[in-house]
Amino acid sequence: MPVEIISVGSEYIIQRYQHAGVAVIANLLLEAGIEIDYVSSVIGQESRLEDVLRQSIERSTLIFVIGNVSSGEYDVAKKLLTRVLKKRLVLNYKVLDALKKQFEAQGEVLPRTEEKRALVPTQTEMLESEQGIVPGFLFSEENKHVVLVPGDETDIEFMLKTHILPRLDPKTFRLGAASGLILKTCGLPLMQIKDRLRSLEREDRQQSLTYVSDGEEISIIVSVRGDLQQEVETRLTKLEAQIRQKLGNVLYGKGSQTLEEVVGKLLGEKKRSLALAESCTGGLIANLLTNIPGSSDYFDRGVVSYSNEAKISLLDVSPNIIEQHGAVSAETATAMAEGVRWLAQTSYGLAVTGIAGPSGGTPIKPVGLVYLALASDQTETQWKCCQFSGDRLMIKKRTAQTALEMLRHQLLIDK
Amino acid sequence: MPVEIISVGSEYIIQRYQHAGVAVIANLLLEAGIEIDYVSSVIGQESRLEDVLRQSIERSTLIFVIGNVSSGEYDVAKKLLTRVLKKRLVLNYKVLDALKKQFEAQGEVLPRTEEKRALVPTQTEMLESEQGIVPGFLFSEENKHVVLVPGDETDIEFMLKTHILPRLDPKTFRLGAASGLILKTCGLPLMQIKDRLRSLEREDRQQSLTYVSDGEEISIIVSVRGDLQQEVETRLTKLEAQIRQKLGNVLYGKGSQTLEEVVGKLLGEKKRSLALAESCTGGLIANLLTNIPGSSDYFDRGVVSYSNEAKISLLDVSPNIIEQHGAVSAETATAMAEGVRWLAQTSYGLAVTGIAGPSGGTPIKPVGLVYLALASDQTETQWKCCQFSGDRLMIKKRTAQTALEMLRHQLLIDK
Repeated sequence: MPVEIISVGSEYIIQRYQHAGVAVIANLLLEAGIEIDYVSSVIGQESRLEDVLRQSIERSTLIFVIGNVSSGEYDVAKKLLTRVLKKRLVLNYKVLDALKKQFEAQGEVLPRTEEKRALVPTQTEMLESEQGIVPGFLFSEENKHVVLVPGDETDIEFMLKTHILPRLDPKTFRLGAASGLILKTCGLPLMQIKDRLRSLEREDRQQSLTYVSDGEEISIIVSVRGDLQQEVETRLTKLEAQIRQKLGNVLYGKGSQTLEEVVGKLLGEKKRSLALAESCTGGLIANLLTNIPGSSDYFDRGVVSYSNEAKISLLDVSPNIIEQHGAVSAETATAMAEGVRWLAQTSYGLAVTGIAGPSGGTPIKPVGLVYLALASDQTETQWKCCQFSGDRLMIKKRTAQTALEMLRHQLLIDK
Repeated sequence: MPVEIISVGSEYIIQRYQHAGVAVIANLLLEAGIEIDYVSSVIGQESRLEDVLRQSIERSTLIFVIGNVSSGEYDVAKKLLTRVLKKRLVLNYKVLDALKKQFEAQGEVLPRTEEKRALVPTQTEMLESEQGIVPGFLFSEENKHVVLVPGDETDIEFMLKTHILPRLDPKTFRLGAASGLILKTCGLPLMQIKDRLRSLEREDRQQSLTYVSDGEEISIIVSVRGDLQQEVETRLTKLEAQIRQKLGNVLYGKGSQTLEEVVGKLLGEKKRSLALAESCTGGLIANLLTNIPGSSDYFDRGVVSYSNEAKISLLDVSPNIIEQHGAVSAETATAMAEGVRWLAQTSYGLAVTGIAGPSGGTPIKPVGLVYLALASDQTETQWKCCQFSGDRLMIKKRTAQTALEMLRHQLLIDK
């Protein structure tokens, strides 16, 4: 009884992360122990989309369809699903009012051409969205279910968590029982992680580990199969414990947790504060940390010191240090970390300086060379030197990940 | 003669942007005037992947298959394609050596289990990668072509640009002739853009405009169909001109250009320099600008002033201003912009302060309220007030986009 996700439209060709909706659904299903078998995107021609919808209703039991609202593809998907499943579209005045209000809020008037957004398929269940504007729909035929949701991630997550997952019996949607989870690591090379965990894979054909690298981070997708859900869950818990035992605190999180989230949580719990001095990462670390709600509680300031003048005037780095050792050096990194911590009077001062490239490298200081330093009010300032591979963005990312990981380890030690 | 992309594996369920590879291929093909008809992802079971590969070879003429190398899915895809297309796998010593070198470079030894990475299908063309490690493969049968590429974006782009696109005759890969391009706007609401361009759509059934919103930015996918490529290109050029005429400098870029790229280019060309003072965006603007190679030429510094102390000590904002008008006010934004410009002695000082939420809002100053200010050495400081909708990340994004757009407009005016 396969499960599949279909996304309608051309978003992804513009903005890679427009596939976020698929990721949201897939993650929620995985957490619920449901494995996805197919994911498809169909572009442009309605006839093709109709074929794909028919095929999926043919082969799958649980189908999720995502359409972008603003580009009108949500309405196309709604229209075609209604046709394929032999329903009718009727105007829903509650939805129409919500729509009109939304436009008024933006000082605009709902154009006649957009009123079709308020059309609702008959004999379907309407899935209210949190903001109560564009609803999703659940089409059910005997033991087949088609869930149509708008492209907005927040809506998707809300609708699935509120209307679908609570009623969803994982058993009826796949062969046998299965359950899975995701564990996240940072700093240890893939090969070493694989080596440490190889024995666990050999142990049992019914459990599998998949690795996904993202810069310095590696996610481990742990999944267990079996006959009884109960037994599968027990084995998954056991397997997780074994992995944790073998990897220790290289593991920083689980599921959708991010490194910045974990670091932010630790800073909050331990009532510690942070100031950043970034050179090669150009504000990436500050941006990641401030993506976390409530970060203003522990994050005081960040300085992106691209020029040497900035390092000197904003971070109190002595011109001599830069002159003697260069802007990319352990000494400068250390001075930046201590400078920013002192000026901000925070518990920690975290600094990075390096060569993100593509230009600016030299034989002695090649592109990808990065120095990181962490000043703390509890211990001596420590620094670290890394040589990262990849393009400019990858070097920025690896540097930010390594810096956050450095801070996380210190937070685990510090009072 | 449909064209399709198949991505193998479970990456996307962890990291949304792991679908980047698909985006890269789709963009390159679109630029070449080739429309994609299907995009699928298959997860886990080899049997399912084999079915999907057979089906696609059945229905499509040009097929791209992407597999993640580190998770081993690239090798699975290689193995299955070889089987489906009735080839054999043989060990290639050149590839094996490159692999060994790669591992040595990381101070590791290639494990026997990884040697399968050096297996190469017979009767295929090997597509060298730039770094020369994992090659791609071109399987050709009569007029069908299957291109297998590793998951790394850089590799994919390099392989397509070097080995595939130059030899690809768009005509043979779709019905009739077609060509397309992407135009990008910022700041104008979708409805207004649609209104301004509606006449162009009505004009001709063979040309279509698709809109994709991303915060304050809207991308317009322009595509034209017809019989002769030559004639299609001419009409596309004409259509582009018409759109430019109707939208004026609301259009900031074309194709894969980003707003930060355009702003950076303008700063460079006009030999102007920039300093940033960010509050609610938490370093996002600095991060975007420093993603552009060479940004160190014009970007001097950024200050992420989350605390009021930081605003006062790093930006010379007078405590009275904050006390009288609040941290989120036109006065504070102005003081931040002028302060950072003065301290950095740059041509521009760009500042944002607002409430990103979810908490921190009040009836008078709700979540999403943002003040932006731009100080220049050529004109008076200007400020702008916006009320953005969406969650924390969306508010950060909309603020950053609006700030960059503000700077772009000034750059167009200034000498």
